[in-house]
Amino acid sequence: AYIAVLPGDGIGPEVTEAAVRVLAAAAEVYGLDLECERFPFGGAALERCGAPFPEETRKAVLEADAVLLGAIGGPQWDDAPRALRPETGLLELRKALRAFANLRPARVLPGLEGHSPLRPEVARGVDVLIVRELTGGIYFGRPRGLGETEAWNTMRYTRPEVERVARVAFEAARRRRGHLTSVDKANVLEVGELWRRTVSELAQAYPGVRVEHQYVDAMAMLLVQQPTRFDVILTGNLFGDILSDLASVLPGSLGVLPSASLGEGPSLFEPVHGSAPDLAGRGIANPTGAILSAAMLLTYALDRAEAGRAVEEAVAQALAQNPTPDLGGTASTEAFTRQVLEALY
Amino acid sequence: AYIAVLPGDGIGPEVTEAAVRVLAAAAEVYGLDLECERFPFGGAALERCGAPFPEETRKAVLEADAVLLGAIGGPQWDDAPRALRPETGLLELRKALRAFANLRPARVLPGLEGHSPLRPEVARGVDVLIVRELTGGIYFGRPRGLGETEAWNTMRYTRPEVERVARVAFEAARRRRGHLTSVDKANVLEVGELWRRTVSELAQAYPGVRVEHQYVDAMAMLLVQQPTRFDVILTGNLFGDILSDLASVLPGSLGVLPSASLGEGPSLFEPVHGSAPDLAGRGIANPTGAILSAAMLLTYALDRAEAGRAVEEAVAQALAQNPTPDLGGTASTEAFTRQVLEALY
Ligand SMILES: CC(C)[C@H](C(=O)O)[C@@H](O)C(=O)O
Ligand SMILES: CC(C)[C@H](C(=O)O)[C@@H](O)C(=O)O
Repeated sequence: AYIAVLPGDGIGPEVTEAAVRVLAAAAEVYGLDLECERFPFGGAALERCGAPFPEETRKAVLEADAVLLGAIGGPQWDDAPRALRPETGLLELRKALRAFANLRPARVLPGLEGHSPLRPEVARGVDVLIVRELTGGIYFGRPRGLGETEAWNTMRYTRPEVERVARVAFEAARRRRGHLTSVDKANVLEVGELWRRTVSELAQAYPGVRVEHQYVDAMAMLLVQQPTRFDVILTGNLFGDILSDLASVLPGSLGVLPSASLGEGPSLFEPVHGSAPDLAGRGIANPTGAILSAAMLLTYALDRAEAGRAVEEAVAQALAQNPTPDLGGTASTEAFTRQVLEALY
Repeated sequence: AYIAVLPGDGIGPEVTEAAVRVLAAAAEVYGLDLECERFPFGGAALERCGAPFPEETRKAVLEADAVLLGAIGGPQWDDAPRALRPETGLLELRKALRAFANLRPARVLPGLEGHSPLRPEVARGVDVLIVRELTGGIYFGRPRGLGETEAWNTMRYTRPEVERVARVAFEAARRRRGHLTSVDKANVLEVGELWRRTVSELAQAYPGVRVEHQYVDAMAMLLVQQPTRFDVILTGNLFGDILSDLASVLPGSLGVLPSASLGEGPSLFEPVHGSAPDLAGRGIANPTGAILSAAMLLTYALDRAEAGRAVEEAVAQALAQNPTPDLGGTASTEAFTRQVLEALY
């Protein structure tokens, strides 16, 4: 299989390097034929090619079996015009891959409750999967524009767009604890009404899944008050951006969280954390999120769930052994990665 | 002064009743001439007049010196067409009052850290004021619509709309701890770009206020991870809906939180909590949010800060004495209200 690797900016190159080494090891152990090739993306691509998602990279990702991304962005590009920002490249990449379903698991692992900002009795046992629509909604809706004294964006969803991402969420719920919470703002937005109706109709096809609807404001509260109440959480692009970041603080470290974006093209795997410019180049970035994204790649893109699980277990061992400083350990990125590799072999 | 009281639905009538009694007592003690009159609103008005914001009520609120609202909504209206929903009445009311700045203070009071879902060391000392734009953005933007297979809404802001609510936030920051955090999604939305630019320009006029910008997803995380980092938080209508609800869980009980909506017309005061249909009629609703909203009314609408503070102190005493069951006490709504009244006289 052919993996396009987009290291990106900040700590992106360091953590993807670690993930690629783990992927290579897993390939060796599980007899997989893997080829990883790196391509410029994000701010790094802006510097080298003048565009955040250059043609060369676009061609490569569309031919790949899966895409592994590090992280993008940095303060130096914050004031650039929209077309010359790393984030724009990310949005174009998601669109090009037609990766409409973003899956973000967030678990509070037993024994790690102490890292959560929530009280241990609230955090204990949290295990949610956010399914965020990723190629529609207000992120891509037109008309959009910025004038001298006014700006406008359009939130728009079609029934098929809602349905296909909802299907992913229902399937996931069926394989998990059978509970789906769909989030919208149907009491104010027409888009929310369409969302709610579409999900309710699809629910007929999944009698084994218990469906609940929540308004986004109430959901933000409940995720903090009673996070263990939830299993799979389905929502649109903008609300998903906010809620998946919110859910990701529950385990206490962004650094450990992976994500997968699935759709009609090659799937995209990336850690949840950002490019963390302040940590870049210091050799102490936590590569866990990137390595667990590689594990999701093995499971979802290459259909090698066994290899994916082995990587997850190796990571759990390494975390128990000596984590990176963000989790109170002393391991460097390099040392931590070696621990994972040793556990894997 | 003439106060239009809109009890609304669920526990709305019970908590506004308590607040009106406290207002009357404060008027007596501080020599204020107050007249309170009740008008149908929300679901109650739908039942009585066929519209959530009837003409009679519209006339009254526009003539009033201030409006005190309970809560609205309930499951029986969830599937009604948009025009026949309690929420639509609320949006029309805000618009009619031109109440463009919604102020929601959220404090973790000393000694009450134990009620917060956050660890006490994270919750201790939280004291934020969310300033939410309330009459623009995607709540009111056009075009909007719902077809058979598609729905759309428009997020739109003009520079003057951003400026006037930002001014309220800068003024509040100046009188508080001099720190303003403006929240947008400028890395994706043009509306966010306009928001950020407008706030940055206005910042020149407030050299004593330290201004910081955050993306809404990052802000949702930071509010949970490091809530004490923030003082005044300024944002648009939709993000404000989400973030103010999120902030409101930090103290551990929605029931204690008031809000004020200020603008060009009479100001609107309402507790943050909803209509809680499951609690309605049981005599145990916590009236603290409504009573503290009445305190904000005294301070902001009637310019009687002294009376407002006295009510706040009376509430603090009553909370220390015996709160309602949601806060672990045994007081009924009636008993709690009497405690406040006794502390006030
Ligand atoms: C960087 C940004 C464009 C992106 C988003 O808003 O989708 C990020 O926040 C994310 O969630 O992956
Ligand atoms: C009831 C609803 C229309 C309202 C809103 O979204 O503004 C509520 O959530 C609020 O925050 O006051």
